[in-house]
Amino acid sequence: MTSTGSGVEPPPGRTVVDDAQLALLLEVAGTPKPGNVDRAHDYDDLRFEHFLAGGIGARRGLELAADGKRLGRAFERAVAGMSQQRGGNSQFGALLVLTPLVRAAAEGELSGERAGEFAEATTVADAADFFRAFEHVDVAVDDPPEGMDALDVRRGAEAIPAVEERELTLYDVMERSAEVDGIAREWTGEFERSFDAAERLLELDGPVPDRAARVFLELLAEEPDTFVATKHDRETAERASERAAAALAGDTVPAALADEFVAEGINPGTTADLTAAALFVALERGLDV
Amino acid sequence: MTSTGSGVEPPPGRTVVDDAQLALLLEVAGTPKPGNVDRAHDYDDLRFEHFLAGGIGARRGLELAADGKRLGRAFERAVAGMSQQRGGNSQFGALLVLTPLVRAAAEGELSGERAGEFAEATTVADAADFFRAFEHVDVAVDDPPEGMDALDVRRGAEAIPAVEERELTLYDVMERSAEVDGIAREWTGEFERSFDAAERLLELDGPVPDRAARVFLELLAEEPDTFVATKHDRETAERASERAAAALAGDTVPAALADEFVAEGINPGTTADLTAAALFVALERGLDV
Repeated sequence: MTSTGSGVEPPPGRTVVDDAQLALLLEVAGTPKPGNVDRAHDYDDLRFEHFLAGGIGARRGLELAADGKRLGRAFERAVAGMSQQRGGNSQFGALLVLTPLVRAAAEGELSGERAGEFAEATTVADAADFFRAFEHVDVAVDDPPEGMDALDVRRGAEAIPAVEERELTLYDVMERSAEVDGIAREWTGEFERSFDAAERLLELDGPVPDRAARVFLELLAEEPDTFVATKHDRETAERASERAAAALAGDTVPAALADEFVAEGINPGTTADLTAAALFVALERGLDV
Repeated sequence: MTSTGSGVEPPPGRTVVDDAQLALLLEVAGTPKPGNVDRAHDYDDLRFEHFLAGGIGARRGLELAADGKRLGRAFERAVAGMSQQRGGNSQFGALLVLTPLVRAAAEGELSGERAGEFAEATTVADAADFFRAFEHVDVAVDDPPEGMDALDVRRGAEAIPAVEERELTLYDVMERSAEVDGIAREWTGEFERSFDAAERLLELDGPVPDRAARVFLELLAEEPDTFVATKHDRETAERASERAAAALAGDTVPAALADEFVAEGINPGTTADLTAAALFVALERGLDV
């Protein structure tokens, strides 16, 4: 009912960065997302409000991505800002997958191919930024592969000389992790799952957080969560996906699965990160909240 | 555990505008806030995610307030951006009380006196902006006082000629509403309740959304909600405050009061707006999330 007379201007639309932040908020609002913090679930030391503060704090870094600055630097600043709350690592993986998507959207062409080109164009400086990002948070990761001890992300900025010596770009680092990390796989695979899940979000009906919870389960049923595989083992991750599939099939209730996952310490964080990426793409493509 | 070596810079802090947005998000996250949308409550047509999108959409207007632009204009743009979600009016009153507070904080002195000075310094142009803001949303208001028909906010921008003819500033408009509107009373009373409630938020222990829910009840117990008085009547508003006091005293459970208020259509929206203002002041004063 906005009037065009009397000097009333049209409302300002959400920017690309606004959509990225809203995607982070909608992700954590969707419930149940079994095993994750969501509108109805907290962990003792990682709570809903930490995700709200994390989403707000990430803005400066997301703006750098939109402004065409180095992707690694944008990511590192986003993580640094996100980490300014008591919960610690709320959205590390989500920011990693969002950064190239935000760049592509800001440059006017949000496609998996274009985001993949930005990922491929990263440099050694971006890789150094990526290792710096680990200084701001604790991230659960496995031991590095054979012969890669010098590049253990747990070394944080101390690994930078090894990165520089081997002349690894951030894309190279992602390629080396693609087998064990679902976010790295997006970086090196034209963000295929993020875009597919975005289509699902646009197809489904109902409140957006409900769609997000549904798409989270679909993603989890489709592929084992690499964060669960890292924290537990491959078998636990595969079994979690089977259980998500059973919930989708109606054999169990998602809310019951949520209770079970919490009790067992299973939290499919990578799948939640992909859900955030999908929400961003869907918002950019007109998903109405 | 941020390292200072290896080129790792300190994290970017939240800006004044970031804090205003985070305050809007933390307000709606606090539960139970009887009668209002919160982390555990939706209405059919006004849902949690509308507040998330409203908080993100308001940014452009909040930035104008921080950048020293006309307060009325900043508010109108904040409302316009906030309204870009399907729920309609999620945070009109909260943005009205936040706008002068954001200006004062951005200028370096967030006190009730300083915010009150900015409120008093508003002009006829600000008043015109204020009336334009009503073009973007439906706001529940009473009939205007005797002889004020031409200034009925429900006329939106059509009321602007009457505002200009009478040379009313936005502060003048607020003075005329102070008796029936708790937000107008903040504008004309140096934001006393917002600052007092901020002190309470800083004093209390526990997760910030829990503190916000507690402070909401305290504010409601302390003074009848003017939105409830407008939508129902003075007696209903007074009775709602007595019931909030009973919940604080432990005679009833806040969650039960929430169910009752929803059933009776009582939603103390002005009290929620003041809670958002208090959260903003508290965040600016170091409230840790």
